[in-house]
Amino acid sequence: MFDLKAYLDSKKRLIDKALEQKIIPEKKSGRLDHAMAYSLMAGGKRIRPILCMAAAEAVSGTDANAGILECSCALEMIHTYSLIHDDLPAMDNDRLRRGKPTCHIAFDESTAILAGDALLTLAFEILASAGATNTEYARRWLKIIHSISRAVGYKGMIEGQMRDILFEGRTISLDQLKHMHALKTGALIRTSVYAGAVLANASVEKIEKLDIYARNIGLAFQITDDILNIEGDPEIMGKATGTDQMYDKATYPALLGLAASGEYLAELIKNALLALETFGRPADPLRALAEYIVKRKK
Amino acid sequence: MFDLKAYLDSKKRLIDKALEQKIIPEKKSGRLDHAMAYSLMAGGKRIRPILCMAAAEAVSGTDANAGILECSCALEMIHTYSLIHDDLPAMDNDRLRRGKPTCHIAFDESTAILAGDALLTLAFEILASAGATNTEYARRWLKIIHSISRAVGYKGMIEGQMRDILFEGRTISLDQLKHMHALKTGALIRTSVYAGAVLANASVEKIEKLDIYARNIGLAFQITDDILNIEGDPEIMGKATGTDQMYDKATYPALLGLAASGEYLAELIKNALLALETFGRPADPLRALAEYIVKRKK
Repeated sequence: MFDLKAYLDSKKRLIDKALEQKIIPEKKSGRLDHAMAYSLMAGGKRIRPILCMAAAEAVSGTDANAGILECSCALEMIHTYSLIHDDLPAMDNDRLRRGKPTCHIAFDESTAILAGDALLTLAFEILASAGATNTEYARRWLKIIHSISRAVGYKGMIEGQMRDILFEGRTISLDQLKHMHALKTGALIRTSVYAGAVLANASVEKIEKLDIYARNIGLAFQITDDILNIEGDPEIMGKATGTDQMYDKATYPALLGLAASGEYLAELIKNALLALETFGRPADPLRALAEYIVKRKK
Repeated sequence: MFDLKAYLDSKKRLIDKALEQKIIPEKKSGRLDHAMAYSLMAGGKRIRPILCMAAAEAVSGTDANAGILECSCALEMIHTYSLIHDDLPAMDNDRLRRGKPTCHIAFDESTAILAGDALLTLAFEILASAGATNTEYARRWLKIIHSISRAVGYKGMIEGQMRDILFEGRTISLDQLKHMHALKTGALIRTSVYAGAVLANASVEKIEKLDIYARNIGLAFQITDDILNIEGDPEIMGKATGTDQMYDKATYPALLGLAASGEYLAELIKNALLALETFGRPADPLRALAEYIVKRKK
């Protein structure tokens, strides 16, 4: 039996340690670095970097994939920047995240905007730096930088957040909802899996299968988030629940009902696992992650 | 005699056309792309991309440097993103820029934050994409991405903006002011010149000389900005003047006086030109740009 908890714990430790070393706030002024480190080390689950690592393992059969830790750190920084900006008063206006005051509450609005900008920029610096130390794989890293920047850009994650804001209080179709989530949360999850696969030098065929996996779990991740916003425990989640309904947000439970949302979830996970059929044992972490994504409590 | 006006006009046309083709707002929703295009095409002088092109010319002796237009577009996008975020209510709270409403006034605050994020991200996508089409030069592009991301990150431009905010209303030393500007405006100007030089495959020695040029004109650019904020014509500049004094901002004229600031400017330009001594005629555009930077009216 694959022990997911031990796997998650050991990967999280690795990533947390690497992230901590990337930004060492200066003792003196250092307001900017303090804000960056504050949000980055606020206890995230590190799902995206772990997906990247697990995808590389599924392809190469080993966890010793060169550059995988740099790439993972960059992905988590981009995720954190998106949370900092999404939480801003002009956006979702959230005061609590992972049980701690959000960045603009702990510091202030201008510092939070800049800390987000800085984490996004640092992600690309880390990727370029990892690539520059390895002549042989320069093109591979450019592919990864290209994929990530597209995924989180104005035709990806940022457009998803824009739509999320524009949709507030409006009646939208299930297709519009799906497309919005494919952009807002799906794109970063897909590129995380893709980046891991490329670092492990995956074949085109394997990359395609992993992408089917990623698309399915990406959507499943969002639906689970929506359900947790209704049924979750605010204590465990470290943030308020019931907010989607309060702000009249379009969600899967709101559009499909809770029961049908649950069935849809099961179908997505089935499709994700099916895509991994030919991968053998090295894909066990990815399989367990798919199940974890819907069973998590926060 | 080198005709700077014709040179600037032709380069600006080239860059404007290329920028326009990078973001084609969709007719339907497209709020995000509209905001990005609005700020990007709001009539900037395109100084940074032109410096990048002129640096490449100074090295190679030709204006046909592969990838130079992509790189120039990326630099201008990063500059525009920094302006959009700096203008936000939580930052400098500026309502007018280049004679037009700033992004958050023309759209709204959340759209402006996202449009800035998106322009920064698109810059890296363009750089990675330019590099990926050219196997031979993959490492060169990684070096450029690395240099740019460092320059505009939390130890560069963003830290400069953070300090600018923190310094407001405080008494600071000339050294603190210089360092703040080296970060806030100097770093992007230096990396623009560096990127052009790298694309033209400059020797280490030439890169060093161009960097001395860039550091001097970067500082000169800022001092001229400070002087224009006092003596400039708001009509020509398309933005309010006198604001530095109003917000009690530390500036060169405030710390040194207007006369000494002018002398310092002349010294910086002299140093910049001296660094180009061995470059011959191909560096004429860079020389003319140095003089233009202090003589401009906006």
